[in-house]
Amino acid sequence: MASSGAEETPADSSAAAISKKQAKKEAQKAEKLRRKQEEAVAAAAASAAALSEVDLLAGNYGDVPMEDIQSKRVSGRRWTEIGDLDPSLAGRTVLVRGSAQASRPVGKKMVFLVVRQFTSTVQCLLTADQVHVSTQMAGFAKGLSRESVVDVEGVVSIPKEPIKGATQQVEIQVRKLYCINRAVPNLPINIEDAARSETEIAKAEMDGEKLVRVGQDTRLNYRVLDLRTPANQAIFSVQSEVEYIFRQYLRSKKFRSIHTPKLISGSSEGGAAVFKLDYKGQPACLAQSPQLYKQMAVSGCFGRVFEVGSVFRAEDSYTHRHLCEFVGLDVEMEIKEHYSEVMDIVDGLFVEMFDHLNENCKKELEAINRQYPFEPLKYLRQTLRLTFEEGIQMLKEDGVDVDPLGDLNTEAERKLGRLVLEKYNTEFYILHRYPLAVRPFYTMPCYDDSRYSNSFDVFIRGEEIISGAQRVHSPDLLTSRAEACGIDVKTISAYIDSFKYGTPHTVDSVWA
Amino acid sequence: MASSGAEETPADSSAAAISKKQAKKEAQKAEKLRRKQEEAVAAAAASAAALSEVDLLAGNYGDVPMEDIQSKRVSGRRWTEIGDLDPSLAGRTVLVRGSAQASRPVGKKMVFLVVRQFTSTVQCLLTADQVHVSTQMAGFAKGLSRESVVDVEGVVSIPKEPIKGATQQVEIQVRKLYCINRAVPNLPINIEDAARSETEIAKAEMDGEKLVRVGQDTRLNYRVLDLRTPANQAIFSVQSEVEYIFRQYLRSKKFRSIHTPKLISGSSEGGAAVFKLDYKGQPACLAQSPQLYKQMAVSGCFGRVFEVGSVFRAEDSYTHRHLCEFVGLDVEMEIKEHYSEVMDIVDGLFVEMFDHLNENCKKELEAINRQYPFEPLKYLRQTLRLTFEEGIQMLKEDGVDVDPLGDLNTEAERKLGRLVLEKYNTEFYILHRYPLAVRPFYTMPCYDDSRYSNSFDVFIRGEEIISGAQRVHSPDLLTSRAEACGIDVKTISAYIDSFKYGTPHTVDSVWA
Repeated sequence: MASSGAEETPADSSAAAISKKQAKKEAQKAEKLRRKQEEAVAAAAASAAALSEVDLLAGNYGDVPMEDIQSKRVSGRRWTEIGDLDPSLAGRTVLVRGSAQASRPVGKKMVFLVVRQFTSTVQCLLTADQVHVSTQMAGFAKGLSRESVVDVEGVVSIPKEPIKGATQQVEIQVRKLYCINRAVPNLPINIEDAARSETEIAKAEMDGEKLVRVGQDTRLNYRVLDLRTPANQAIFSVQSEVEYIFRQYLRSKKFRSIHTPKLISGSSEGGAAVFKLDYKGQPACLAQSPQLYKQMAVSGCFGRVFEVGSVFRAEDSYTHRHLCEFVGLDVEMEIKEHYSEVMDIVDGLFVEMFDHLNENCKKELEAINRQYPFEPLKYLRQTLRLTFEEGIQMLKEDGVDVDPLGDLNTEAERKLGRLVLEKYNTEFYILHRYPLAVRPFYTMPCYDDSRYSNSFDVFIRGEEIISGAQRVHSPDLLTSRAEACGIDVKTISAYIDSFKYGTPHTVDSVWA
Repeated sequence: MASSGAEETPADSSAAAISKKQAKKEAQKAEKLRRKQEEAVAAAAASAAALSEVDLLAGNYGDVPMEDIQSKRVSGRRWTEIGDLDPSLAGRTVLVRGSAQASRPVGKKMVFLVVRQFTSTVQCLLTADQVHVSTQMAGFAKGLSRESVVDVEGVVSIPKEPIKGATQQVEIQVRKLYCINRAVPNLPINIEDAARSETEIAKAEMDGEKLVRVGQDTRLNYRVLDLRTPANQAIFSVQSEVEYIFRQYLRSKKFRSIHTPKLISGSSEGGAAVFKLDYKGQPACLAQSPQLYKQMAVSGCFGRVFEVGSVFRAEDSYTHRHLCEFVGLDVEMEIKEHYSEVMDIVDGLFVEMFDHLNENCKKELEAINRQYPFEPLKYLRQTLRLTFEEGIQMLKEDGVDVDPLGDLNTEAERKLGRLVLEKYNTEFYILHRYPLAVRPFYTMPCYDDSRYSNSFDVFIRGEEIISGAQRVHSPDLLTSRAEACGIDVKTISAYIDSFKYGTPHTVDSVWA
């Protein structure tokens, strides 16, 4: 069960933390692994030679020759997905392809083989007999290195006892077994080790058993292996679904998807450092936001647009909320009368997203929950909206000292999240009418109180996930707001001028 | 009808071509424009003063005060989209918001106002009477600068004669007219001028009439105005729909959407120049392709993935097929047996896409066709697949001298496109089994003839739009192929090693 690099602790594993000493240690480890692998390859070869004794059932198993996986033919065979295997298939012959996650021999004549596809696993059983499975074939199964890719053909059966070691509650009685591609015999990461939760490891330790803990560095060094854990498979599926709902929902509301330039001539967002580069002799930089281009699209009468795209910020922070590169989900829309129109979109979008994940991604959420336990999110059918003043009032009543016209710090945000949860039973809400002073100069002031602005933040579990605001689209007001904020108006004249050609309606924006 | 910058020719307008002299000319033009605008503003003010004479119907029109567009209230009023206006609404009162594209007075008591939203326009008629519209209100409509944003409330009527100057075949008898946001009186681009086709301009010239031609530089300098032409609106809609179908189709085939890093440590694709940048003191570069990461995802057992994302290439070429930055549509999938599995996906995807655009984007295609005339694409229900050898044979029979194991140049590709169209009546087809020598070292050789490879290109109208290939996933074969191509294997050992952990099945790739 030894797994190289398994003794590392998962915490504090940023690239910067790797010292030269560690690098040397890594090199030694790699060398050791290479030697081990060479030995194992030799052993496997010897074992293969032994297997080549006369076997009348030899056609039922073996390594598929290279030629056959060079697109030699289309056989017309149909593969079943492992996740689709259920008791309704009992008695049927199926063909599955997956990764040999583990093989466990029981004596010489029986081998259990766990085969995995995405987040699903199935137990396959080889029992040597005179008709289907030879002893050599069982030996072949036993000798398969973990993570080798295999085709398994067999009959679906329902075992008497519930199956603990696999997700599917059926077993495949193997008739044919072919290896499509062998993995090296010693893997740097064992998927079963990598898939364990901290709770499971801690519990085993309490029972006096020491389970392998796969460190973060090892995971990152062998990312393709770590990606194979059910939790990682599920995280990427959920990400893909989130983007899907984002797009579907906005499309149903007549938004169009756009893609804006990432290589631009000047910085596109205040407050964030910029990556600079040489564009064929001219200075250029990477877009820190699609903001200006989204606005151009709306000024170009596009009405409603969204973008899912790369955002680059040369941040020096190492919090989990600041990244040098991330995928932004951006929305920009005309409003007819009120910035609440975009809060309506945000509201509907997120409720739809949460509902969709709960309904359609049960399996994925369970897979994540097994490795990283979490509680279901509490949210309302109609999202709670509080004004900033109301939020401040709640904090004050709880004895928290906050500036009523300043920004909330992380601590205050979290506190407010807890108070909102207690009072309104939701972990998802919108706070709006932020103080004008804490928003950029291009944020529209409130019509009735110029200390506040037509802006909002959206929170999940006390953390801001979206900001949005009505933008000033009047060149005169924009000029006076810029002056009030001490900005040299000459430097932004091109931006101000772009609003002189009949900017459609008032413009609003969100980003996630 | 004069429009600044309108005399420029549309051709050869790359940024590099703008000389200092031109820049000076542009500056003078801008200065002239500014003066004109100032005069016009003064004139408008004078006109507004005249309008302020006692008017009992004054509440029916006017400029909406700033306060009212600062999210003062949610009135509950409903706006109708201009594109939805049709004869079924005759007699009904509707409220629309759009851009005042043109106003045409007929005497003192009548004004035609064309209002535009996206690709649709509607003719609005103001007739001064004692009940609804005062002479001052007609004057207000007449004085609206082009592209100002307006709310029009009125009764839908069906005119006796077909309407030539607008897309909608109904008229609005205006009752109320409010200006939400005024554009400057003199615009650098007149949308009607910018929307004309070259054919229309040429025809007018034949008839002795000189129409304004908006040059490419002017379009790019005032992009928000040029974006308002029906053709540009439609092009972005079609782009958005293409992405939508790409995603929907692949999702239905169990692909997951992923996003891969764009800031990477080394170049990710041979044959294309790379943008370098400084990543906090370390050298980094922009990804020229998501290729390596897509493969990692498949090696991580993701099965089928796609990405729509930014691709950066420091190309020096100025053809329409080489861009420094573009949005790539990338697909990567496991195959069970044959690279034709990915050709099946490509086939189904494109037929679906063409069908969808023809069925659901008629209005958009018409709008593009009016400015940039084109013929509908000819394609088959089942996409034609030719082997490279068959393609060479067709060219040879037509007397074209081509190397049977070399690549096709642009001219040969176009020629083949014409021959295919003649013989098979399709402008969309797949050419596969390319010579191994013209494909990268990681392309899988054909099992039966190592001079060819398991790869393909997809063509539209004689131009390649997609490349795809089965990838070599055997570390041994990959090593020997790299050696055969004169590549120092040590430099790509990390890549080769990544295939040692049981790469799932054979991997295939496409990019568009």
